[in-house]
Amino acid sequence: MELAARVRKGERRALARLLTLIENDDRDGLEALSALYPHTGQAHLVGVTGASGTGKSTLVNRLAYTLRRGPGSPTVAIVAVDPSSPFSGGAILGDRIRMHDLAGDPGVFIRSMASRGALGGLAAATGGLVAALDGAGFAIVMIETVGAGQSEVDIARTAHTTLVVEAPGLGDEVQAIKAGILEIADILVVNKADLPGADHAVRMLRSTLDTARPTGEAGPAWKPPVLPTVATKGEGVEELAQAIFRHRAFLGETGRLEQFRRDRARAEMEMLLRESLFAYWRNTHADGEFEAALERVLARQVAPRMAVEMLLAGRGA
Amino acid sequence: MELAARVRKGERRALARLLTLIENDDRDGLEALSALYPHTGQAHLVGVTGASGTGKSTLVNRLAYTLRRGPGSPTVAIVAVDPSSPFSGGAILGDRIRMHDLAGDPGVFIRSMASRGALGGLAAATGGLVAALDGAGFAIVMIETVGAGQSEVDIARTAHTTLVVEAPGLGDEVQAIKAGILEIADILVVNKADLPGADHAVRMLRSTLDTARPTGEAGPAWKPPVLPTVATKGEGVEELAQAIFRHRAFLGETGRLEQFRRDRARAEMEMLLRESLFAYWRNTHADGEFEAALERVLARQVAPRMAVEMLLAGRGA
Repeated sequence: MELAARVRKGERRALARLLTLIENDDRDGLEALSALYPHTGQAHLVGVTGASGTGKSTLVNRLAYTLRRGPGSPTVAIVAVDPSSPFSGGAILGDRIRMHDLAGDPGVFIRSMASRGALGGLAAATGGLVAALDGAGFAIVMIETVGAGQSEVDIARTAHTTLVVEAPGLGDEVQAIKAGILEIADILVVNKADLPGADHAVRMLRSTLDTARPTGEAGPAWKPPVLPTVATKGEGVEELAQAIFRHRAFLGETGRLEQFRRDRARAEMEMLLRESLFAYWRNTHADGEFEAALERVLARQVAPRMAVEMLLAGRGA
Repeated sequence: MELAARVRKGERRALARLLTLIENDDRDGLEALSALYPHTGQAHLVGVTGASGTGKSTLVNRLAYTLRRGPGSPTVAIVAVDPSSPFSGGAILGDRIRMHDLAGDPGVFIRSMASRGALGGLAAATGGLVAALDGAGFAIVMIETVGAGQSEVDIARTAHTTLVVEAPGLGDEVQAIKAGILEIADILVVNKADLPGADHAVRMLRSTLDTARPTGEAGPAWKPPVLPTVATKGEGVEELAQAIFRHRAFLGETGRLEQFRRDRARAEMEMLLRESLFAYWRNTHADGEFEAALERVLARQVAPRMAVEMLLAGRGA
């Protein structure tokens, strides 16, 4: 409880410690998170996903910088899930200038998160981190992922507004279209728009969106804009910030934010319930029990479904 | 038990009935499947995935036809999961000639399966259908999916050899690259290879595979061939059949088939265990209990994780 109170007072060291506890699935972290929970639900969550090489991290930094200097000067927290992100290690030293823009600004908090363990674990921990930053009072929480697999798509989906970052060149287009991430984009960004092929990429993405976007949802539709940016020079970043605010307003006005929150809470609770039941079962049964059942299945003595039923009935397999 | 025996004797009506029972999650079906289980593990499972418009269904038919006329004349079963497949309804009447090649051949069995309900449900039922056809004695079981989403990718992954079908033209390339299905391809097929742009598509896919394919696995690597076909004329289909046999031999010689079976069985059992535990919990608790916890989470009175723990401790939320 004390930790949560210190986090609420804006103590950065307390916040850093809380995030570590949450990442480690520590009991104290979960309790502090519970204490913070009444304060959550205020932040606007922005997911940023895209292949490496698109300049996604630079864009995230610039966006934070621009938001801080914009109307209302909202506080910004960044969770970088991409292990190749400059936040997570290696590249940070080669990138001092970029970080310099944000360093020393108490209204910006950056946290890197190594991809590790099971996908479910990563998604669950990210959810906890985002809730903690939300509860700590940050107005905007950005979640940066590399966007290569289903888990990253899931993580991006926890965001209210999802940016998909592209860069000119076939390789990147291919990378970004992968995993259906175009479908989850609320805003498409073509970064490095000063490179050859940028106009083509913008046009291609616009036409792909026009033809491929499902229009199943009722009510007014959000048409994802395709925005060119040059993050290194800050070009187009102001327009990007405005698009994010427009999308936030759209979600609020159409009642989608409420529906989104409800759907997410239900999905998160079901996921946690499933994981908890499974973990509980594994903790209360010897490893050998499951492994013995697996061996009998592999020996074709019993079908998987029947083996599981026998395990649950406590009759081994 | 009697149903399983009739299926083993090759009675097609008994087989059709068993598949329906499995699709409906019927107790008798699960018991017959258990009785058949000792006979499974013999079939070679071939997943065929690709966007609509690639001529995937025609290719599957031609491949079955070619296999039946090839060395050893292996029996072939086809499970078509794609709802737009000619097997599943509408299109079948416009496609008599194509079906004619296979009709009346007792060594071929075709089953369509409507995409319905939850994704997990679809994947679980497909696994049961494939096991039944395997246990019924078919030498080759082909699983045809439309390949648009994660669920289809999961279904294709139950196969030993996965074909990804393409056709010339940007739209199809984009479609196929989506959802990362290139990564799951053991064999890439460019169908409609008599259309303009086919050579380009073959070259592009070869170069994408050369650059994008991860080489993380130990031991000798399988290099997915890119094969042009014209299914309507049967061109290239013989070569495709040979590539499937080559891949099967590769899996056997490198020990991957054994590892694959073990990994699949473990994943299937864990999935079934998770689903069963969750279903059991929901069946033994009133709906209102979960919904009340959800409302308290939405009111920010309690964090999702804590709400789930309270549900599990039987203290409501």
